[in-house]
Order: sequence, then structure tokens, then C-alpha cells
Amino acid sequence: MERVINLNHGDPTMYEKYWMMMGERTTVVIPGWHSMSYFSDVKNLCWFLEPEFAKQVFRLHKSVGNAVTEGRHIVVGTGSSQLVLAALFALSPKDGSEPMSVVSTAPYYSSYPVMANYLKSGLYNWAGDAQSFDKEGPYIELITSPNNPDGFIRQPTVNRTGGKLVHDLAYYWPQYTPISSTADHDLTLFTITKLTGHAGSRIGWALVKDPEVAKEMVKFIELNTIGVCRVSQLRAAKILEVLTNTTEKLGRSDSGESFFEISYHLMAERWRLLRAAVNNGSMFSLPEFPPGFCHFLQQETQPQPAFAWLKCEDDAVEDCESFLRGHKILARGGRQFGVSPKYVRVSMLSRDINFSLFLKRLSKIQS
Amino acid sequence: MERVINLNHGDPTMYEKYWMMMGERTTVVIPGWHSMSYFSDVKNLCWFLEPEFAKQVFRLHKSVGNAVTEGRHIVVGTGSSQLVLAALFALSPKDGSEPMSVVSTAPYYSSYPVMANYLKSGLYNWAGDAQSFDKEGPYIELITSPNNPDGFIRQPTVNRTGGKLVHDLAYYWPQYTPISSTADHDLTLFTITKLTGHAGSRIGWALVKDPEVAKEMVKFIELNTIGVCRVSQLRAAKILEVLTNTTEKLGRSDSGESFFEISYHLMAERWRLLRAAVNNGSMFSLPEFPPGFCHFLQQETQPQPAFAWLKCEDDAVEDCESFLRGHKILARGGRQFGVSPKYVRVSMLSRDINFSLFLKRLSKIQS
Repeated sequence: MERVINLNHGDPTMYEKYWMMMGERTTVVIPGWHSMSYFSDVKNLCWFLEPEFAKQVFRLHKSVGNAVTEGRHIVVGTGSSQLVLAALFALSPKDGSEPMSVVSTAPYYSSYPVMANYLKSGLYNWAGDAQSFDKEGPYIELITSPNNPDGFIRQPTVNRTGGKLVHDLAYYWPQYTPISSTADHDLTLFTITKLTGHAGSRIGWALVKDPEVAKEMVKFIELNTIGVCRVSQLRAAKILEVLTNTTEKLGRSDSGESFFEISYHLMAERWRLLRAAVNNGSMFSLPEFPPGFCHFLQQETQPQPAFAWLKCEDDAVEDCESFLRGHKILARGGRQFGVSPKYVRVSMLSRDINFSLFLKRLSKIQS
Repeated sequence: MERVINLNHGDPTMYEKYWMMMGERTTVVIPGWHSMSYFSDVKNLCWFLEPEFAKQVFRLHKSVGNAVTEGRHIVVGTGSSQLVLAALFALSPKDGSEPMSVVSTAPYYSSYPVMANYLKSGLYNWAGDAQSFDKEGPYIELITSPNNPDGFIRQPTVNRTGGKLVHDLAYYWPQYTPISSTADHDLTLFTITKLTGHAGSRIGWALVKDPEVAKEMVKFIELNTIGVCRVSQLRAAKILEVLTNTTEKLGRSDSGESFFEISYHLMAERWRLLRAAVNNGSMFSLPEFPPGFCHFLQQETQPQPAFAWLKCEDDAVEDCESFLRGHKILARGGRQFGVSPKYVRVSMLSRDINFSLFLKRLSKIQS
């Protein structure tokens, strides 16, 4: 019997190979008496932020050039999910007469509606697709760029006064999209999960301009989890340190170790294979992206998102998720992202063996 | 100038010495390619629970005899704070006409009211002191035993049909209180923070009887933080493993390493010194506790809580927190626990140097 391939989640296990190749360089050794206190840095606004983690985050952004760090507070989170919630809390008035509207342009990240609604908060609630948002007054717009699920670069949609913007730049790294400019927003989210593949570490960070907003986010995390695992931050710091070291060798004698170069080529190869498999029939289609100049890789590069946003072109297939499930491929259907079930989101970051099997099954479906 | 002693938080840095003494035995070594996936155990109801952590939790409870583990699901949390929130979510009806009332008997843990209210959830809200709760219908009662802040053993207060109980047993360990019986509740919370002192690890666990409740708690943690840091669980597992190893030597050739024996004696000594300092004047008083037989230590033991619940007996002092702040001692005032400001909660788990300084200042105040 054929086994099920689960490409529903964006589990980034593709990156294991790179870190194996890097051997012991990212190994951390943690004695039992280390990092016992709640406090990482009592003098920092974000008292649970490990200074070494903050240092490596700043260094990496400087090296890649994907986000302005000057004049920003770092707020570390238990993954960027916690930071989305912290941002909703921080940006909503505490004494509002009704909840703040939270919007995002469809197709939007499938977790946003449920994250905004699951506690039935009186501070904020989900108000749907930003394109059809027509309510007066303040709102929060979540802007994921490159977008999850479809990979396109995004700008704010609503553009009204009173709007607060949260930029989720989880995928704004050179392996996924050209780094065309240095992001300079009020509140920007990143996560180690999609950057290095360390999903199980649950580490994300926010770059926050307004210290009052940063303080409110810190307060949220205090009440939610009393900070963020310190050892996990230290491990993340070590991984970012080694990663940045490999990128700084770019342009000098190429050691063949550059994380972003290797990951870029891996993604390029996967997208090449996927497009070939899709174009081999007329059953499916994929989005087309314009190339751009990547200031980090110093060349024109192609967008090659962490997810494939696959459309079933066959008129007989109404629900692409169910259709693929019939072929033992688990993917996430368009409805969850606020659009037609003709679409599915498929992870591009699985282990080689799963990705190959996925291609084989796609080809078989179309043959 | 005298420095400020911060005994406001229950930062358990007292335990660092023990783990230093244990040397490399609890050291963990984590290569960069380990624990990268989101998933710890896809077949477990709690898919983000590390099997090794679950194993060590069960083993420890079996050894100490403080909680029944048979027929329980473990839900791991980013500290027990996250599990309190997960429990509120899981135990509240999702389609209720009004929020579920959350109560606890005063003096209650100061974070409970704010945890229940900060998101203005439509699912649950804080309804105050359980002793004066008189609303009809369902409710959630939080029972902390031994209690934070005052150290007393507690039973449910409301005792009405439709009540859901959450037992927070963070302090139900032999160093703090006699282990007189094996707790056998529907939903019980523990945390490594107060057990071993590893606050910065943010690891707690719930023992949950009803699988439907466990599933809802898992759902909360999925939406809140997409699981719990895996490396932190593995480190916690190692620490619990070594801890249980030292306790299993009890009664055999005493190696002098038993975590609970050493911690029990340390707490006993601190309480002896504190009581001596307090009894040296008439300014303050402390609660008195009946001794009990500890089935784990196999002797009669004294309750010696992780916090001292100090009362200012001086009629001239209305606000004990402010009064102590004037003497550069930071403690948490009674009002935050729902009672008179004549009380303060003082951490008993600080490093030796802070604890000694605290005693000196208390003596000076009374001289």
C-alpha cells in the first residue's frame, strides 16, 4: 500500500541535511546549572531576551540586508505565532467599545482567523479579507510577504488612517525571494523556523519601533508564558552565528558552505522539478513570479516560495485537497486561506524522499 | 548605599548550587540537526510531547508518590502558566451565552485574575474569591496546594455541581510540604520551575484524565505557540532523570546526593532562620503549619513553603509592601492576592547571599 505523504504543514525538515553537513559547529553544550533564573537581561525592556540571541539577530539582518534594525527593540517569542498574538494584544486599545478588526488579504495564512478568534477576545477579532474590509475606524492588517500560501510580495491593502500594520516577514530570506530592499516597518516578525529549519525550537522575534508597543508585547508574553525558553534562545544564537559566518565568506574564497547559497540552489532545483512535473500535463498550474535583483546574492534571482500554491485546473475537480488526499498527498485546501477549494498549499520544505515521492505522484496523476 | 533585594518574584536561584554540585551529570549536548521538526511524537494526542520527557515525568511521580499517573494524558506546556490558560480554554464551553466564571480562594496567586482577564475573553473571566462566589451555573475553580502565596494545603471551596477543578500542584514536592497522599484529580498542573529551579526552561506539564479535555488543551497550545520547545523538554528530561536517580538511592547507602533530602534540609534551615529573625521582635508574624507524615521521606516533616507570607503586625504600617520597599526589600503586597496590604509574599528561593541579606534587614528593622 502507498504511504501517505504529509505536505499539509510547513515542516522544514529539508534543512536537516545542511546542518548535518555543518557537523559539530552548531552543537551546544548546556550544563545543568545554566540559565536557571527566569531573567535573561533585567535591564532590557524585554527582560527575557538573551543578549547573545539579540546580538546574532542584529548581525544576521545586517549581513543579509533584509530589515532595518537601528532604533528597533527586539521582542523574542515562543515562535512567531506567539508574537502575532502579542502584536494583536499590543495594538488593540484596552478600553475600546468594540473589538479591533483584524484583516489580511486573501489568500491569507490559514491560522490568522482562528488565532484572532479562538479566545473570543473583546480586544480584537477577525474581520476577514482586507480587500473587502469596509468598516470605519481602526484596524490591524497582517501583511505576510512573501505571502503564505501563494509566495507573492505584498504591500498593505487597506491603507486607511487608524490602520496598524504587522509585517510577517517569515519568508523574506534569500533562498525564497530576491532581497530587493531593506524592510523598514513599525512592527516586523521573523522566525527561525522558516529561516534555518529549526521549527522545534519555537523561536521567533519581532523588530518593534515604538517602545510602548514593545512593552505591551512583552507584557503579553509575561502573562502567556512568563518569557521564552532561554536555552532555546542560546541554541538559536549559536545557529545564527554559524549561519552568518558562512554568509560572510560570500565573494571571498568560496568555501561552498554558504547557507543561503546552498538553500537557494536547493529551492531552485525543487521548483524546477515541480514546474516540470506540473507542466507535463494540464491538470495543475502554479503561480508565475517575476525575477528580481537580490542585493544579498548580488544577482537576479527567482522567487521560489516555501509553499507551492497549486491550482487544480481540471473542471471535474472542485476540491483539490480531497482530490490529492485520494492520491495519498496531504495538502491544505484553499478554503482555509479564504479562497476557492480549487487551490491547495503544498509544503516545499519536506525531506528529499517525500519531495521526490510527491513529484512521482503528481506525474502519475497527470499520466 | 544599600542595594535592593528583589524577593518579589519566585525566582528559584537557590537550586543552582545543587546542580553545580552534580557537575556534568545533567549536561546535555545538542547537535544542530537535532529536534528540527515541529513534531515530537505524531502518534501521541499531544504531538509536541517528547517521549523521553513523558517517561521521566511518569517515573518521577511514581518515585515520589505525589500524583497518580495511570490513565492520565500528559500535556506539556511552555511553563505551567500556559497550561493554566490552556485549561481555562479547554474547560469553558465554546458556545456559552456568557463567559465561564473563574474563581480561586483568597489569598490566591496574584497572576490568576490578570491571566483570566487580560484578553477580555468571551469564554471565561475572573469572578474573584471562591469564598464569596455565589453565581449560579458552571465555574472553574483554581486550587493551588500548597497555596501560593501562603503555603497552606487546600481543598476545593465552592463544591457545587457544574464546577470544574484545576489543581495547581507546583509546590507539592517533599522539600516544601509532607507528601501525605497521592493526588488523584481530573486536571493537575506541575512545573519544573519550583521542582528543580529551572525557571528559564519554561517547562510545565498537566496530568489530564479526560482525553477530550487534553485534546482541547493541545489545541490551545497549537494556536498559542505551535507546541513547546523540544530541546527544552529534552533537557528537562535529563534533569528529571538525574533527580529521580538520586532519590532512588534513598534508604540504601546514602550517597548524600538525594535532591529532595538536600533541598528539604536547605528549606528547613531557611525557615528556621526566618522564624528566628521574625520572633526576635513583634513587628512581623508568619503562618504556623501543622507537621505531617511524608510518605516519601518516611518521616514527619514540616511544611516550609517556597514563599513566606509575612504579616506586618505593627499598627502604624498599613502597607507592608511599601514599608519593606523603604528598607530596600522588594516583595509582593497582599492586595495583589486579594487580601489586606498588611501581608506580603517574600520568595524563600533566592540565592544564599540575598536570603542572608534579607534576614539581616529584617533583624535591623526590628531592632
